[in-house]
Order: sequence, then C-alpha cells, then structure tokens
Amino acid sequence: MATYKAPLKDMRFVLEEVLDFGTLSALPGNGELTPDLVAAILEEGAKIAENVLFPINRSGDEEGCHYENGVVRTPAGFKEAYRQFVEGGWTNTTSDPRYGGQGLPATLGFMLSEMFSSANMSFSMYPGLSHGAYEAIRVHASDELKQAYLPKLGDGTWTGTMCLTEAHCGTDLGMLRTRAEPQADHSYSITGTKIFISAGEHDLAENIIHLVLARLPDAPEGVRGISLFLVPKFVPTTDGKPGERNGVRCGAIEHKMGIKASSTAVLNFDQAKGWLVGEANKGLNAMFVMMNAARVGVAILGLGLAETSYQSAVAYARDRVQGRSLTGPKEKDKPADPIIVHPDVRRMLMIQRSFTEGARSLVYWVGTLIDVAHRSEDAEKREVADDLLQLLTPVLKAYFTDMGFECANLAIQTYGGHGYIREHGVEQLARDARITQLYEGTNGIQALDLVGRKLPMKGGRPAQRLLGEISGFIAANKGDAAMAEFIEPLEKALGRVQESVLWLMQNAMKNPDEAGGAATDTLRLIALTAMAFMWARIAKAAQKGLAAGNDNEFYEAKLQTGRFFARRVLPQTTALMHAIKSGAEPMMALKAEAF
Amino acid sequence: MATYKAPLKDMRFVLEEVLDFGTLSALPGNGELTPDLVAAILEEGAKIAENVLFPINRSGDEEGCHYENGVVRTPAGFKEAYRQFVEGGWTNTTSDPRYGGQGLPATLGFMLSEMFSSANMSFSMYPGLSHGAYEAIRVHASDELKQAYLPKLGDGTWTGTMCLTEAHCGTDLGMLRTRAEPQADHSYSITGTKIFISAGEHDLAENIIHLVLARLPDAPEGVRGISLFLVPKFVPTTDGKPGERNGVRCGAIEHKMGIKASSTAVLNFDQAKGWLVGEANKGLNAMFVMMNAARVGVAILGLGLAETSYQSAVAYARDRVQGRSLTGPKEKDKPADPIIVHPDVRRMLMIQRSFTEGARSLVYWVGTLIDVAHRSEDAEKREVADDLLQLLTPVLKAYFTDMGFECANLAIQTYGGHGYIREHGVEQLARDARITQLYEGTNGIQALDLVGRKLPMKGGRPAQRLLGEISGFIAANKGDAAMAEFIEPLEKALGRVQESVLWLMQNAMKNPDEAGGAATDTLRLIALTAMAFMWARIAKAAQKGLAAGNDNEFYEAKLQTGRFFARRVLPQTTALMHAIKSGAEPMMALKAEAF
Repeated sequence: MATYKAPLKDMRFVLEEVLDFGTLSALPGNGELTPDLVAAILEEGAKIAENVLFPINRSGDEEGCHYENGVVRTPAGFKEAYRQFVEGGWTNTTSDPRYGGQGLPATLGFMLSEMFSSANMSFSMYPGLSHGAYEAIRVHASDELKQAYLPKLGDGTWTGTMCLTEAHCGTDLGMLRTRAEPQADHSYSITGTKIFISAGEHDLAENIIHLVLARLPDAPEGVRGISLFLVPKFVPTTDGKPGERNGVRCGAIEHKMGIKASSTAVLNFDQAKGWLVGEANKGLNAMFVMMNAARVGVAILGLGLAETSYQSAVAYARDRVQGRSLTGPKEKDKPADPIIVHPDVRRMLMIQRSFTEGARSLVYWVGTLIDVAHRSEDAEKREVADDLLQLLTPVLKAYFTDMGFECANLAIQTYGGHGYIREHGVEQLARDARITQLYEGTNGIQALDLVGRKLPMKGGRPAQRLLGEISGFIAANKGDAAMAEFIEPLEKALGRVQESVLWLMQNAMKNPDEAGGAATDTLRLIALTAMAFMWARIAKAAQKGLAAGNDNEFYEAKLQTGRFFARRVLPQTTALMHAIKSGAEPMMALKAEAF
Repeated sequence: MATYKAPLKDMRFVLEEVLDFGTLSALPGNGELTPDLVAAILEEGAKIAENVLFPINRSGDEEGCHYENGVVRTPAGFKEAYRQFVEGGWTNTTSDPRYGGQGLPATLGFMLSEMFSSANMSFSMYPGLSHGAYEAIRVHASDELKQAYLPKLGDGTWTGTMCLTEAHCGTDLGMLRTRAEPQADHSYSITGTKIFISAGEHDLAENIIHLVLARLPDAPEGVRGISLFLVPKFVPTTDGKPGERNGVRCGAIEHKMGIKASSTAVLNFDQAKGWLVGEANKGLNAMFVMMNAARVGVAILGLGLAETSYQSAVAYARDRVQGRSLTGPKEKDKPADPIIVHPDVRRMLMIQRSFTEGARSLVYWVGTLIDVAHRSEDAEKREVADDLLQLLTPVLKAYFTDMGFECANLAIQTYGGHGYIREHGVEQLARDARITQLYEGTNGIQALDLVGRKLPMKGGRPAQRLLGEISGFIAANKGDAAMAEFIEPLEKALGRVQESVLWLMQNAMKNPDEAGGAATDTLRLIALTAMAFMWARIAKAAQKGLAAGNDNEFYEAKLQTGRFFARRVLPQTTALMHAIKSGAEPMMALKAEAF
C-alpha cells in the first residue's frame, strides 16, 4: 500500500541548515518566527496530513465525486476532513492578518502545502484554489470586496475558484466569449460557460466565490479586452451570510484520469451577479497574480506526489523479497533478498530521492524569495528576489510536475505488476500527478514563458541574477577540495546553460521558431542546473554538519544522494545542449499536411 | 476523440523497400507470398482493426470486465468481435499448417498484431495469450497433446493462458509453490493459486487451455524444479468437445489502472487434471519459448499504442485552433492557428513519429529474423538470425514499451487539459500502455537479461553480429554524400555502444553490481543505436524512391523524420554513455536502512 510520513527532519534541515533562516526571521512581521515555532507548526501539519488526509486518499479515488442535478457531493470523509482542516486553521496560515489571517511566511506555507499534496492531492485542490482567489482579491479588488470576502475565504468558511477556460479556449484566452453587462447598481450580469473549473461545485463549504474572466460590451478584441469579476455562488447578505442563490449552476463534472475526488466542474453563468475586480480590460493582469501563485503551487503538488511515490517505493523495495543480490545472498535466512539489493531498483529509488530532496530545497528557496519580494524593506533585495522568482516559476512548474509523474511511474515500476493494481495505491499517484503537467498552462506553455518572456525580460536581468547566484557559489567554494565533486559538474552544467542561452539569443531573433523549438529542452537544462546548485548547497551544509560531528549518517546520505544526482542525472545536460543547438529545422521541416 | 487508421502505406514501404522482401519469399513455405498478397491480407486486417476492434476500445475501458461467482463477462461487443475475429481466420494466420494454420510468416503476423494492438489492446490480449500457449505446446508437448489442442487453439475455438505468477513470486519463479501430483493415468493433479493471469477466465471461447508452472513432489528447489503442465478448463472429450469441468476456478479479477476489458484473473487450481508439457523439471525452458514470443508481442503492443497516440495527437493538433504561430498568423481567416504550427507541438509529434516509423522497421526486421531462424535451410543464416533475435528481444520489449507509454503521454500533452478527460480517449492509451512496461518481465528485468545474459552469451557473438550488421551498413554507405547526415551520427552512436560495452566488460567481472547499475542505460543506448541504424536504412530506401521520381512527398517526409531522430533524439546516447561510465557506486553507496 502507498505510504506517507511527513519528512519533517529533511524539511527542517533545508530551512535551518541549507537556507538562511535569519533572512526569513528578519523580515517585517516574522519577528516571532523561530525554528522551534516552525517545527511545532510542521508537526501539527504532519498530523492532519498523515492521519486525516492520507487515509481518505485511496477511498476518495475509488469513490470519486457524485453529480446530480447541479449538486456535487465529495467522497465519504472529505466533508469531515475539510471541517477539521478549517478548524485547525490550515486554510489561513499565510493569509493577511488584516483579514484574520495568521500571516505566516510563504516559505512555511510551501512546507505545509507539500505535506498536504503528498497526503491527498485531490483534497489539497480545494484550499489550493481558494488561496489563488484570495490573492487575486487581496491584490486587485476594492476595499469593500476585500472586507466582504477575504475573511471567509481565509478561514475556509467559503472556498474560491479561478474561471478561465472555455470549451474553445484554454491557452488562448483572447478568444473567450463569456460576457459581462454593467448594471445600474454597479454590479455586472455575467453570462457564459466555463469548463475545467476545479472546486467549481462541491459540498465542503457554505459558499463558493468564483473569479471569472469575461468581456465587457465595449471591450477590445483579444486579451486586452478581458476583465475579472467576482461571482459568488450565494450573494452574501449584509451580515456576511450566504444570501440569494446566484445565477451560476454546475452543469456537469468531468470524468477524469485521476484526482477523482477533486470536483472539476462545467459552470453555466446565466445573468449571474458579479463585481469587477481591478480595472476594466485588465483582467489578465489580475489573473496572472492568481496564476503565478498557482504555478508554484502546482510545482509543489509535483514534489508532494514524488515524495509519496518515493516513500511507497522504498517501503515495497525493503519488504518484497525476490531474487538474490548479484554479489551473493544478503539475507540468507530468507528465501530471497529484498529487492532493494538490486542496482536497478536502487537506480529507481535514487532518481526519486535525488529529485525530492533537491527539489524541496529549491522550492523552499523560492518560498524565501517570495517572502523577501513581498516583505523586505530593502528595495534592491525585493527586486532581486522578484527577478529570480519570475524566472524560476515556469522552471519549477514544468520540471517538478514532469518529475512528479516520473517518480510516480518509478514507484509503479518498483512494485512490478502489483503497481498496476488499484488497491496498492501507487498507480493512483501517477494518474493524479498526470494533470499537474497540464494545468495552469501546459508544461510546453511554461517553456515558452521561460524562453519567450522570462529570459529576455528586463534585458536578461533575471537570468543574469540566477547565473550570478550560481557562479558566486562556485567561486566561493572552488578552493574547497571536499566540494570539488559537486562544484565541477555544476560549473560544467552552468557552462552548458550559458552556451545554450547564447545560441538562443543569436538564433531566436532571426527566427522565433528557434525559441519555440528549444523551449522545452532549455527549461529542463536550466532546471537540472538549478537542482545541481541546490545539491551543492546541500552538500556544503552536510559537510558543515559532518564537521560538527552529529548525526553523521544523515549527512553522509545527503552527500551520497548528491553524488548520484551529479553523476547519473546531471549528464542529461550534455544531450539537452546538443538537442537545443541542433535547431528547430528538424521539427518544422515537415509540412502540416504530411503528418 | 482517439483516432486510428492502419498505416498500410508505411507498413508496405518497410516490407517492400526497407527490408528485403526476397529473403522472406525465398523461405520454404512462402512460395506464394507476393507483395500484392501481403497487401490484400493487410487490407482485410485493417478493416477488422478499424471497424470492429477500435469502436469497442473506449466502451470496453469504461465498462470493464464483470466478475460474479467465478464467471467473467467481457464488456459489450467483445464476444461478437471475437466471433468475427475467429471467423475471419485472424487467430490462425501464423499457425502451423499441420494443425490447420495458415502458415503465414511471423513478419506478417507482426504487421497484423500491430494493427490489432493499435485498435484495441485489451482485445488483442486474448488471441495474444493463445498464441504464446500455442507455441509452447507446438514446440514442447507430445504429439497427442498437439493433436488434441493445437487445431482448436489455432482456430480460436479455444484460448490459452500462461500461468506463472503467484502472489509471492513473479520475477523469482524459483519460489513458486503450486504442486503437481502424478496420477495413475499419467496425468497430474495440480493444486495452487496463480495471480495476474491474463485471459484466465472470460466468456469469449468455449474452453480455456492453461499452461501452468508447478512443482513435482520430488522436484529440486528453485528454478530447476519447475515443470510445465497443460490444464484445460474443460477436459476435452475424445471427439474434441469441452467435457468435464476441471478443478480450476477464477477466484477474482484484478481492478487495474488500464486494459480494463482484458480479464486478469486469480486462478485457484484444486486438484485440477493436467498433463506434462516437455520434460519434468525443465518447465522453465518451455516457458521461455512462450515468454520470448510474448516479449516481442509486448513490444508490438508498445508500437501499436504509440501509433494510435501519434495519429490522435496529429488529428487534434490539426483541428484545435489556439494562439498564433510565432512567425506570424498562418490561417488569417480563423480566430487562431491550428496548434500544429507551434514548434513545441511539432516536437511532441515528431518524437512520436520518429519512434513509430523507426520502430516499425526495426520490429518487422526482427520478424524476418524469426522467419529465417525458423525456416531457412541454411544453418549459418539460421544461427545469425537467432543470435540477433536473442539480443534484440529484451531491447525491443523494454524500449518499445517505454516509448509506447511516452507517446501516449505526449498525446495527452498535445490535447492539453482535454487529454486528461476520459471521453477523449487518449488518457486510456497511457493507462493501457503502462502495463506493457511491467509484464513478461519488468523493463528492469529486460535490461538485466540484456547485460547479464545476452551480451556475454556465446562469447559475445550476438552483440558482435549486431555491431557487424551496423558497421557493414556504415562501410557500404560511407562514400555516399547524401547519406552522410544519417551515417555520421550512427557511427558516433555505435562508438558509444562499443565504448560502453567495453567499460561494462572490464568492470562487471570485478563487480556484478556494475552490470546491474548500467543495465537500463545500456539497453536504451543499444535501442537508440538500433533505431538510428533502421533510420539510415529507411533514408537509403527513401533516396532510392526519390531517385525513381515517384511520390516525392512521402520519401521527403521519411528523410525529414529521420533527420529529427538523428539530431534531436539520438544525442541522448552521449548522456547515457556518461551515466553508464559513472558506475554503480552512486546508487549502491547508501545503506538500505538509510533510504
């Protein structure tokens, strides 16, 4: 059976030893933040993840959501789990204290999200979507809307959605058709059909707040004519209770490959009452606030599923006896050795482990960048953090979700035929993980965002900042012989990034298809290099730990896992650079009719 | 919706222009074989694939098999489809004419299998398993058993199974516990429980013939104490009708990730009547006859699913309009361009296309090797063919199935969010494909078979033969400037294979874990090089076609697709060689307890 225990020790190691806890606690509003406080919060989060959310993950997949006459019922146990989740304050951890939130840093929010994603991805979608809606309202809405909606979205009494997609447009939102007619009372009447709306209808909360992209009557064509509206399922009364039923109805839920306990709704808006969020025709900007937060959130889903996959694969590989070690029997009293003795099983486990540990440090680092970007009083530091964040968001979204799916499949492969059987629970991880490569922009779209927007933006400043961070670390550690095995491959990978980006700059100007053709490979190349950077930082922290003489096995394992990454995973960067520099011609040559 | 039309033109191109049709038609028993006859058979096969099997693929997944009280009912339409399949003679194409078979070459059987796999993998499992059972009986059983069982297995009146796995043993068959007690009438009484038995119980045919691995009372421990038994569901009467119900009952069917219309049974043998097939305690040898045939069969499933994935992705990419080409609008009269204009969509399509076309030529070549190995009157030719076949079997099984799954996932990715929705049919392809990486030995086991048995066997002769085939082709075409773009990368890849195999020979002797640690990457490296070899042969044929001046678009597309493979896919061989030569230490260093 799939297995999950929150990796609290590793989480704390990253926060306290790999990253700089002082940077975080020095930020305004974080005055009371200590490692012990963080640890206490994480321990409580682990309890709800392991004891409340994980036990209904498998049953939720088997049962799925039920749709009848516009009403969606979540699987057995979800309602009660959500009640406990809300009561524990887990929806409100990083929310704004001005609206009743706990104001914890984003970094800590990421750590909690990782656990909830590992335990039950379908469940974690419900509060996850609320978080995106919350952010869009907090940043863009009027004070009146903030006062009316943020407290209840924050404390989980209500949940939120993002209503972008229509049947004929997903990536290309410029084509959307949902209309908004201004009303005499300054509200709008919204009409249209949205699809793929996660948490669009369910029975967990008393109200659902939809953030809807629509067109005003006089709006320009394309993406410059899109506005964002807040459309509640029930229009709140003046005392904040769900009032009149609004004109938004769930027409169906989708039957999906996975995340079956997550309701994915078709929503029909029929003269629904809504309010403008932000400026008219600037809806896409407001939406991107949600979207960018959501993209890192999806990356964390990838990490979370990879962790559960890894833990499940390890448990099975230790337990299942089959065949003998190639170097002679290891457990002579048993009829066979546990399969963890086999190098090819090790290979699968180490790919997963070297991903989860490296990725954890990378995304928590990104968490600290968000906290600095939002809270630092130093404008220069905010700018640096925001630059890095902009660049890394698509990289993490695509790479983490590709790897989440890969790790889930490695878990299936470790289980052998048993992995294909539903009751063992690992095939669910793969089916659940598969969506993360698609939503909030497919991973191909992330790659285009990287090469088309993020690399060239601000004259290449964000990319220069990342390369600068990495070369700074290399320079600082070049004299350290113990670090050479991590620094040398990192330096080579960095060289490949530089060479590839240079090639891209020289060629994509002449032919934009060169950017498109190189996009996915460039994203992976940068992701692997960023991972090698984090592994070098982990190794540095591990060596410090070893020098202090405590817990040597833990730190040795870090070095061994980092070595696996450097020697067995990072060489992919050579092939990626070759592929990038071979250009787009081989993929564009064939005429569309010839396919 | 998923789409499938049999790629008859490409199939014929491979058989008639890339491979040597004369070699095939010159074999004893193939006297009447002409390209036109093959084409006529393929056209009829395409009809049943497209019109009978494909239409029930999606509904079969949705409905699944039903189990009640030991009885399994297949989904709606399967019984009628099987009836038509049998009536058309499709179960009997490659069977032995001495037992009523049509005696067509294996190569043609592969071509038909590819179509049936593309159209409906779940369905194709039923006749597929019969074929494995048929071969084991044909090669190993007594004349009496052959006479009694082969005609009805061949014509599809009965179906067959392979009963290997037990709950505690899959890969490690030495641990199996099913017992066979000799009876006075020279039959055996079989008792034990087998799991994961494909086609183990169903309602398609009047009888099911199980081939069961079990232990005799005095059998030695381990794999040297396993014997093979034939155990019919109904013991045939002397006039060949299903007679007395035998003591084998289906206890349950598995709930799986995919191939839901394929029944996967738990079979309880309780003093079931059986007959020995082949020699006592030599059951594993007999089983390997089935297993090796089955492995190539599974490779063909991978190709088949990749083809349907590719066709479905192309259809969607042509139809779905979203966004504009990076180089300016291509279809100005539409609100957006079809997504096939985007390089990253092209990348996904070209990965699939360069796989399916290369793989098709590779596996049909392997088909001709089987035909030569079985039928040639020239002992030397038989030996060469058998050597190549032995080596390539695990390579094809693992690489084709990994790619089948990857192509299905690329189809989902091309569809975007719509690919995750069940009704569109492409997520089913991924769920169905996933099992192929697991059965008939997981792909990790295939890799071990390659490095541990096939590379060192006969002093390395099979590997030398493959390298010799490839270097021979390189030498013959080195002077041809038009071939340089295919020959040069092939030569480099071949060099990487040689360097890696040399490294393996030097290191695996000292430490067998080095073989295990390098296995998967070595298999992929050899697979990519074999694919590059086939792409060079395809290019050669295409240039010949171009010189003849007919159908230039078809031949140009071949060259363009081959270029994509050489420039964008084949560079992976550099990373693989690096990883192989970094050794097993990074994966073995961590103690089992430290995971």
